[in-house]
Amino acid sequence: MSIRYGYDEEHELFRRTVRAFLDRELEPHYRQYGEKGGLDKDFWRKAGKAGILGSGVPEEFGGPGGDFVFNVILAEELGRSVGSAVTGSSLMADIATYILMGHGTPAQKARYAAGILAGEVSQAMPLTEPDAGSDPTAIKTTAIRSGEDYVINGEKYFISNGTNADVLYVVAKTDPAKRGGGMSIIIVDAETKGVSRHKIPMVGWPAGDTGALNFDNVHVPVSNLLGKEGGAMEILMSVFLEDRIQIGARSLGAAERALELTLDYTKERKVFGQRVIDFQNSQFVLAEVKTDIEVGRAILDQSVMKLRDKRFTFEDGAVLKLWMTEMENRVVDKCQQLFGGAGQMKDMPIAHMYTAARIQRIYAGTSELQKVSIARALMK
Amino acid sequence: MSIRYGYDEEHELFRRTVRAFLDRELEPHYRQYGEKGGLDKDFWRKAGKAGILGSGVPEEFGGPGGDFVFNVILAEELGRSVGSAVTGSSLMADIATYILMGHGTPAQKARYAAGILAGEVSQAMPLTEPDAGSDPTAIKTTAIRSGEDYVINGEKYFISNGTNADVLYVVAKTDPAKRGGGMSIIIVDAETKGVSRHKIPMVGWPAGDTGALNFDNVHVPVSNLLGKEGGAMEILMSVFLEDRIQIGARSLGAAERALELTLDYTKERKVFGQRVIDFQNSQFVLAEVKTDIEVGRAILDQSVMKLRDKRFTFEDGAVLKLWMTEMENRVVDKCQQLFGGAGQMKDMPIAHMYTAARIQRIYAGTSELQKVSIARALMK
Amino acid sequence: MSIRYGYDEEHELFRRTVRAFLDRELEPHYRQYGEKGGLDKDFWRKAGKAGILGSGVPEEFGGPGGDFVFNVILAEELGRSVGSAVTGSSLMADIATYILMGHGTPAQKARYAAGILAGEVSQAMPLTEPDAGSDPTAIKTTAIRSGEDYVINGEKYFISNGTNADVLYVVAKTDPAKRGGGMSIIIVDAETKGVSRHKIPMVGWPAGDTGALNFDNVHVPVSNLLGKEGGAMEILMSVFLEDRIQIGARSLGAAERALELTLDYTKERKVFGQRVIDFQNSQFVLAEVKTDIEVGRAILDQSVMKLRDKRFTFEDGAVLKLWMTEMENRVVDKCQQLFGGAGQMKDMPIAHMYTAARIQRIYAGTSELQKVSIARALMK
Amino acid sequence: MSIRYGYDEEHELFRRTVRAFLDRELEPHYRQYGEKGGLDKDFWRKAGKAGILGSGVPEEFGGPGGDFVFNVILAEELGRSVGSAVTGSSLMADIATYILMGHGTPAQKARYAAGILAGEVSQAMPLTEPDAGSDPTAIKTTAIRSGEDYVINGEKYFISNGTNADVLYVVAKTDPAKRGGGMSIIIVDAETKGVSRHKIPMVGWPAGDTGALNFDNVHVPVSNLLGKEGGAMEILMSVFLEDRIQIGARSLGAAERALELTLDYTKERKVFGQRVIDFQNSQFVLAEVKTDIEVGRAILDQSVMKLRDKRFTFEDGAVLKLWMTEMENRVVDKCQQLFGGAGQMKDMPIAHMYTAARIQRIYAGTSELQKVSIARALMK
Repeated sequence: MSIRYGYDEEHELFRRTVRAFLDRELEPHYRQYGEKGGLDKDFWRKAGKAGILGSGVPEEFGGPGGDFVFNVILAEELGRSVGSAVTGSSLMADIATYILMGHGTPAQKARYAAGILAGEVSQAMPLTEPDAGSDPTAIKTTAIRSGEDYVINGEKYFISNGTNADVLYVVAKTDPAKRGGGMSIIIVDAETKGVSRHKIPMVGWPAGDTGALNFDNVHVPVSNLLGKEGGAMEILMSVFLEDRIQIGARSLGAAERALELTLDYTKERKVFGQRVIDFQNSQFVLAEVKTDIEVGRAILDQSVMKLRDKRFTFEDGAVLKLWMTEMENRVVDKCQQLFGGAGQMKDMPIAHMYTAARIQRIYAGTSELQKVSIARALMK
Repeated sequence: MSIRYGYDEEHELFRRTVRAFLDRELEPHYRQYGEKGGLDKDFWRKAGKAGILGSGVPEEFGGPGGDFVFNVILAEELGRSVGSAVTGSSLMADIATYILMGHGTPAQKARYAAGILAGEVSQAMPLTEPDAGSDPTAIKTTAIRSGEDYVINGEKYFISNGTNADVLYVVAKTDPAKRGGGMSIIIVDAETKGVSRHKIPMVGWPAGDTGALNFDNVHVPVSNLLGKEGGAMEILMSVFLEDRIQIGARSLGAAERALELTLDYTKERKVFGQRVIDFQNSQFVLAEVKTDIEVGRAILDQSVMKLRDKRFTFEDGAVLKLWMTEMENRVVDKCQQLFGGAGQMKDMPIAHMYTAARIQRIYAGTSELQKVSIARALMK
Repeated sequence: MSIRYGYDEEHELFRRTVRAFLDRELEPHYRQYGEKGGLDKDFWRKAGKAGILGSGVPEEFGGPGGDFVFNVILAEELGRSVGSAVTGSSLMADIATYILMGHGTPAQKARYAAGILAGEVSQAMPLTEPDAGSDPTAIKTTAIRSGEDYVINGEKYFISNGTNADVLYVVAKTDPAKRGGGMSIIIVDAETKGVSRHKIPMVGWPAGDTGALNFDNVHVPVSNLLGKEGGAMEILMSVFLEDRIQIGARSLGAAERALELTLDYTKERKVFGQRVIDFQNSQFVLAEVKTDIEVGRAILDQSVMKLRDKRFTFEDGAVLKLWMTEMENRVVDKCQQLFGGAGQMKDMPIAHMYTAARIQRIYAGTSELQKVSIARALMK
Repeated sequence: MSIRYGYDEEHELFRRTVRAFLDRELEPHYRQYGEKGGLDKDFWRKAGKAGILGSGVPEEFGGPGGDFVFNVILAEELGRSVGSAVTGSSLMADIATYILMGHGTPAQKARYAAGILAGEVSQAMPLTEPDAGSDPTAIKTTAIRSGEDYVINGEKYFISNGTNADVLYVVAKTDPAKRGGGMSIIIVDAETKGVSRHKIPMVGWPAGDTGALNFDNVHVPVSNLLGKEGGAMEILMSVFLEDRIQIGARSLGAAERALELTLDYTKERKVFGQRVIDFQNSQFVLAEVKTDIEVGRAILDQSVMKLRDKRFTFEDGAVLKLWMTEMENRVVDKCQQLFGGAGQMKDMPIAHMYTAARIQRIYAGTSELQKVSIARALMK
């Protein structure tokens, strides 16, 4: 198998590891995880054991010290997994590791590194709020200095890994009078007094962990500040481009899997005496789907190369996020249609891929918001 | 309020009755129905009491003897109802009443008329089978004459109202050697020995009653034959055009409701300091949605007039089914997008309208099958 | 042949007359008209003789006194004509007759009625200006009272029939300080001193008469005022809804003709050993096209009924114009594609229908402007 | 300026040379070329002098011996040129040089190399025939051995450079009983007795050289055979993948230019008191266009890398041709719409880009044919 532009052999080895893990530990069991309400600690531990967590932890802290491409691979493989269409994007939260390792103090890194690697410590980044979905600088959660503590108050919404995460990188205003410049990131152990949380039931990711969190006079020591006061936006931006690529990769993986499932189905299922794939309409639809996927892989892989070469811009990120997630939706819709009635049944993977795809055009900046970003660059 | 072309005052009065009933008895309670797994007898009885069931029962059997337009209105109003996006299209099965009243013996009509009107007897039409989704003449269920009985064996799938219906109009082959010409309709009380059934969990209509039925040596007297032996296709075709219009009406209702919900939301919700509807993109999207709906209403209402004037053809039916269901999907997708993250939450009606819309392009003949029909007429 | 809803037998008789005329006098000769640079007087005279001009001239002035539906039919048949895809929409300018007859003085009507009916007097309505394409109230042409004359100065652009029209209903500001309220319509014989004009070469309608007009101190007597001073917008609005329907009708006619041409071609042309129409893709594309057309006819005919019943609103007009012209473009593009290379040749009618269709989304208010209108109504 | 993946500095230098040449010699003069009916010898000589012709001629024959990427650049820059939207793809015929240099005898190469480099000898590849548009193996032109000559008879159609080319690589059946295996390429000087040719007027490329050729007992010596008898398909396939990339590059160039023109226009043109680009709809449309272009560049550049690395497959070629040409059409249509009425005028470059784009989805294999190829690979 040929190596894709932008990836080396180590990356491809990691891809095989991730795929094997998901095939073994997620695919056969997602219905159970669905009944339990999501992934459990045991799953995370197995993931840690398999070596797919914490790829961003440097060697000095016991990790592999991999570049960001490992996370891109994790996201693409997660997208390929039907299980993740049900359980959501939890593993993608490993992007937080890059924040911790890039901006934490040695003590902070040391405190969490082993746990992250072992799957004992899962992470979440509570940023979004009910009234500040599109505009992070409009958040209202505060972290006010009081003696040697920060006291956190506020509500967070639509937080991936929100109810299961062990450690939270809470984005809050340490200086509420300011907008972006007054925002800081505070590390909060999820068990801290005053933290309460619950799942938000979503149509897609039915067993996912999309959380609502409430912080009611939560006290944490000032040493829990990640980076410097007022530095939240800068830290967030340091993984922003990475996050765009990660989402694009997830979309590509999902689209590829949808095509595979549909090829299998249409080659087997017969109507009017011939296989579904023998109809020219099916063939043309599948050709369009294949085309979308190939084009998507090209822009994804080029993005990986650009990121590596520090040439991936904010605008590039918006283009990628917009196009890939819209593509995933087109692809999954066309594929699902070729399943006929079967594609509507809860038992069928394609049905879950459809509702999962819908979320992609929304979270991490809606398609509309991406267009705003792209247009802004064009108007300069 | 102006009366639409194709409808008279009696129709519009019925529309108000249906809408009031659904607003009162379905909308506030669909979450409970969801937990119970669907509509219950009590709901049906209330529907009967409200006078919205059995519009096709003639006066001599105690009914209103309405034309088919009443059922079209029932379907459109059902489409408007968020509740039906969760519980499915059960009430639309009232189309079966037209079959019974059009083809049944006086005894058969008398047996069920009162129950249908009162909501005591709900109906289903088991036709589709796992391996004959698109081609009804390929069904394998048999009803073999044995003395004074038919003995029914076979499996049915994707049957609306399938597990709750009291009476089943089972389509089976009385002459298995033939295709369409060997198919008959047998009336089967659902409690008859040998009938077993279960719900098929669907992504859309999560509390709907999409059933799988098994007939294992089910004996019914030959007097249960509806119409004549071998006459199934003819009977089915007698409501086929009506069914197309009913589905189109459901799509129109859903699209209209989606627009209303979205106008409400976008006029209230603010982002970046202004209402969502104040963005030109929102306005243009809503204008496209409105346009789709207005065009859809025109073709639906013209179809009603054509049906009344016996000018509505098989091809017209295919055009209507194809266009209306695709339109509903376009509309609901665009609307849902304007809700941002909120539109993905199970609590939000628009989220259910989205998964419900998806089914419309599939059941009662996929979009592809409609194209086959339309093309056939063009190739003549 | 069945009569369409909204039309009576007299209308359909007129349709046959128009179609026969265009088949005889336009279709076989449009290449010559193309070489000459457009329709000539002789064509107009023949049209007059055939009885298709001046349907809005009342009986007291020698005309048939027809309702507006006759003009709708003229527009639909013109759309059907390949010739009009080359020569443009000249005959549609007969809408001006409704303005003259609705708002002119008896003397004005008498002066032009016979000529209009005979095809001796063709009309144009110079409104649009280079810098006021979308916003009529921003026009800069003035008609300033000077003694017993108006003196007209200004430039007009994109005027249908612009260089061949005999009489011009010039929209100008009699009170330049005002916006809409200062606009009046002045009747100007095209030969008046100071009027100069030339054709604007367009990609579509290559032999059409899209004119640029210059008015340089053009003196006309004040008795040439049409209606009252400041009344231009009101007069224009009196045929505005009619104009929407006329454009929609043209689009429908063009789409229907495109389908007919494509059915003929794909039934004859063979590739890879079978007829183009025998490929399922062709069939599905044609089915989509047919669906678009049927839906379009429904909304057009409903619009005719609404106009007749005075229920056709400004918003309805925007919906119709938007949807029909976009539909025409979809249809013609899909049809042209099925012609393969042949569809790109100047000799092939479909090639001209393609470039002609493109104009429809632009003139008489772009698609974007229609969305603005529709959205405005939704925001109330 | 950053170098794109897949290109080196020499390539980018060539790009600047080509762009400068086209800006100087084609852009300002294409209206004149249009009146003359196409590019003339003088233009070709200037192109030769500028060093942009014959990039595939090896050093031993006096050429630069460049790889195929130079031709890709030529095609992309040609696409960027408004002039080429009027005059067509003549320069892209330089792809023939790779055939001659790859398969010709030393004598054949020597005969033409200098002329090609100098612009004295332009080339064409007559393959397509009226009844074999999609299926090359169905051609009917024959080249029958007669003594020391081949005698060629047949008709060719839609031949780029068809009437101006000096040398023709005629694809003909030397063994008419066979399909692909009986096809050979014969070099024919265009002035040879029995060759007649004329332009086919097209809607797009109005001053282009799309030719129809007739071969009536054309005698050429057997030494004019290019490659070996029966080897035509193999030779054609040797540049087939290159041709796909070349077409994709032309589409990218055109899309990029369309965006530039539209940005310029919308930043200047005002409606309703603000610049067109200040409307959110314009911004969103432009963002979609930009996204399409960026994605297109990624797949094009990846294709160039794959070709270089001999990893570019037949299916990749179909994906690229399909997606890029459809993308160009989407982009140009959206851009043209933002010009309003101005975009329909012959004077405006965007108007020509629109009709030129339409051809891209047709020639060199329609979009449908590409889907057939892609589907074939999926069905394996």
